[in-house]
Amino acid sequence: MTHARLVLMRHGQSLGNHANLFTGWYDLDLSPAGHEEARRAGRLMRAHGFQFHAAHCSMLKRTIHTLWHCLDELNQTWLPEHKSWRLNERHYGALQGLEKNDIIARYGAEQVQQWRRGFAITPPEVEENSPHYPGHDPRYGSLPRADLPKGESLATTIKRVLPYWQNTLRPSLQAGQSLLVITHGTVMRALISQLNSLSPAETCTLELPTGTPLVYEFKADGKIERAYYLKAQDE
Amino acid sequence: MTHARLVLMRHGQSLGNHANLFTGWYDLDLSPAGHEEARRAGRLMRAHGFQFHAAHCSMLKRTIHTLWHCLDELNQTWLPEHKSWRLNERHYGALQGLEKNDIIARYGAEQVQQWRRGFAITPPEVEENSPHYPGHDPRYGSLPRADLPKGESLATTIKRVLPYWQNTLRPSLQAGQSLLVITHGTVMRALISQLNSLSPAETCTLELPTGTPLVYEFKADGKIERAYYLKAQDE
Repeated sequence: MTHARLVLMRHGQSLGNHANLFTGWYDLDLSPAGHEEARRAGRLMRAHGFQFHAAHCSMLKRTIHTLWHCLDELNQTWLPEHKSWRLNERHYGALQGLEKNDIIARYGAEQVQQWRRGFAITPPEVEENSPHYPGHDPRYGSLPRADLPKGESLATTIKRVLPYWQNTLRPSLQAGQSLLVITHGTVMRALISQLNSLSPAETCTLELPTGTPLVYEFKADGKIERAYYLKAQDE
Repeated sequence: MTHARLVLMRHGQSLGNHANLFTGWYDLDLSPAGHEEARRAGRLMRAHGFQFHAAHCSMLKRTIHTLWHCLDELNQTWLPEHKSWRLNERHYGALQGLEKNDIIARYGAEQVQQWRRGFAITPPEVEENSPHYPGHDPRYGSLPRADLPKGESLATTIKRVLPYWQNTLRPSLQAGQSLLVITHGTVMRALISQLNSLSPAETCTLELPTGTPLVYEFKADGKIERAYYLKAQDE
């Protein structure tokens, strides 16, 4: 019998995806298509009778709105919501908010591909006087300065996601809770890498669809019983 | 200087208010007018530069949706949200979900007025086999059975709201936090009764507008510095 269920989902299309920006911690909302993706995912989970004990998302509105749509469609608006900076997208440093094509024109496609898909390659750091430096944002005001990233690689993103897995998500799953976690592409990679014991090379090349629930079912010993994407029958 | 700020607000018009029902813990959504009231309140708080540290609401979607609209308009979607059954509307027992006019026809206007505005007068209890008994609802599944109300008076509502004030809201305000609390008419009466040391007779007769922020500003010693309704200048 399934002991606990974890649903990981990448937020729906954002205005940043839509405009081909390096978004990172830049707090852009969902696009109209992204709002609809989120509602569709919520309806799909409801049609499959998914019931959760708690929900988790990042501190960025594209995951928060995705979560709210899912909770609405699930008729589970009352679930505890936990918003954590540790589930934020990778911080893209000085590239944040810039158009990918401009960056390619400036640095070359190969360099940009390394920043995007390399494992331990960090983008240029954001300056502390930039509006993209997290220290200026009240939502991160209670965090120690040393925790605030100025630009992250996949490797350093994994490092700050892992404590959330170890101290928050995993203990709840072990206690038999079912969790809905709405997060970002890089954080999904980090969590899947941990869950499926992937190598850095495998983690780098993971491609994850937006707005599609990835379901993990666990046995009481914590082992994965089954993992699958939840898709509508006509897909 | 203001040490902390508490904003109490009753949710916008619900489908229950609209249909003249005894709503209580019956989980009806906002009406279209209620959604708009909530957004307007959020815009008003934003225009006055309100910044919060955390938000609280009940486990009923009419306060949750009101809160979400406010957070959206404030551009503070990332705030921690705390949803508690202790901020739920008074449980209306066996009257819940019924039309006020039907109840008046059955029991008489005087009896109904006593149930609605009496201090210690409890409505007929809901049966445990009724869908309105909270024990059937997964959102209350982790609460001790003895805590689940079968019908509350204003007095018993105050009794279950007070621990939330004493253990959760007051300590946060004492620590200098500013809080947004979206709740229900009877719970507002309970909190205001406590804040302003009202008598039972004064508490019973409090009339509170929906969707209008009631602002308390506190000094560092915990005393109230100022309390006022936040209204648009053209109101």
